[in-house]
Amino acid sequence: MTLPNKGRKRMRLAELSERSGVSTATIKYYLREGLLQPGRRISATQSEYGEDHLRRLRLARALIQIGKVPVATAREVIAAAEDESLDHHERLGAATLALPLGPEPAADDPATETARRSVAELLRRLDWPFERGLDEPSPAHRALIAAVAALVRLGYPGDVEQLLPYGRLAERLAVSDLDLVEREKTRTEQIEAAVVLTVLYEPVLLSLRRLAHAEESARRFL
Amino acid sequence: MTLPNKGRKRMRLAELSERSGVSTATIKYYLREGLLQPGRRISATQSEYGEDHLRRLRLARALIQIGKVPVATAREVIAAAEDESLDHHERLGAATLALPLGPEPAADDPATETARRSVAELLRRLDWPFERGLDEPSPAHRALIAAVAALVRLGYPGDVEQLLPYGRLAERLAVSDLDLVEREKTRTEQIEAAVVLTVLYEPVLLSLRRLAHAEESARRFL
Repeated sequence: MTLPNKGRKRMRLAELSERSGVSTATIKYYLREGLLQPGRRISATQSEYGEDHLRRLRLARALIQIGKVPVATAREVIAAAEDESLDHHERLGAATLALPLGPEPAADDPATETARRSVAELLRRLDWPFERGLDEPSPAHRALIAAVAALVRLGYPGDVEQLLPYGRLAERLAVSDLDLVEREKTRTEQIEAAVVLTVLYEPVLLSLRRLAHAEESARRFL
Repeated sequence: MTLPNKGRKRMRLAELSERSGVSTATIKYYLREGLLQPGRRISATQSEYGEDHLRRLRLARALIQIGKVPVATAREVIAAAEDESLDHHERLGAATLALPLGPEPAADDPATETARRSVAELLRRLDWPFERGLDEPSPAHRALIAAVAALVRLGYPGDVEQLLPYGRLAERLAVSDLDLVEREKTRTEQIEAAVVLTVLYEPVLLSLRRLAHAEESARRFL
């Protein structure tokens, strides 16, 4: 997902800006905020940057401008992205866990309790060991409970049989998405790809679903 | 997706409210706005309502409270839902086309033009004849162009090969969703089901996708 590498290892601020798609003013802001390491100073007023700066900068842009993640959180995510003591799953997780997702489930609410049970049963049926092994539900798990609770609260069934096809389809999407992520050559670029895929493909998925509904309806009812 | 039928054909306003989940104040508002036909008057101050009122009311609730559709649009959709001269596909379409989806693509923008071509090629590869046969792109088609343009504008590929798996998965979801819709016994209830599925299952899908990403990442990287 990176722009073509022009082959030069060192670049000035203007080229870093052009290749990353981030304005020089924003780069200077990111430098001040510690999201980016300083470049190698070559004069009183100029520094040189390398490919590692470019990758880190593109990840910062993905998190902040695309992911709408606050700067302080982005700083933690970028630090995690380059923390060799963490495995890749933890580093990907640090990035994607920071991405906003949806409302928290309402506390002390019967619909939430019903939804909580449905979702627990769904995860068991899907046999998703990672989430089931966590001490506390992840943000996505909580968002799913909130979404199912909305159905239940309005009197619609939020039962496992209706949710199961969505879970199976999500599994297939995840295989496809992780294949794309793994095509990137460096860990930092993989994390950038994961952030972009997670956020920017949501409206792609939702609009394709609507188009597919119209196609299937035409097939059945016309 | 309806609440259990208590078997009684006629009901007063209070029961209509309880069974529909709509407050009596809102029902009176819907009556004034012509979203609901008046009941059968049985005294100076009381009317009786039937199952058809209940179905129409639940559809109005689905459109307005869940779908966030303006009242005037809801009125047109409900009229279309009961227009026997329209086929079921057109009636489902009138309802789902009214549901908000996302930003329109930016005009006169190179990224939009690139996206437009990618999406046209995608629809050709998916072989979706209904959308391809329309004179103008539907709202979902335009939303897809806008979503792909956002990718392109940021320098990411919005190419057909990356979009194709999402299209194929959307096809499978649509089969599953239309199966659920067709379980409902009346046309009006089918349209209500379509509206609810379209809107309320979006956050279900998005949170399940995030959970599936975490599972697949754990499978590959832990």
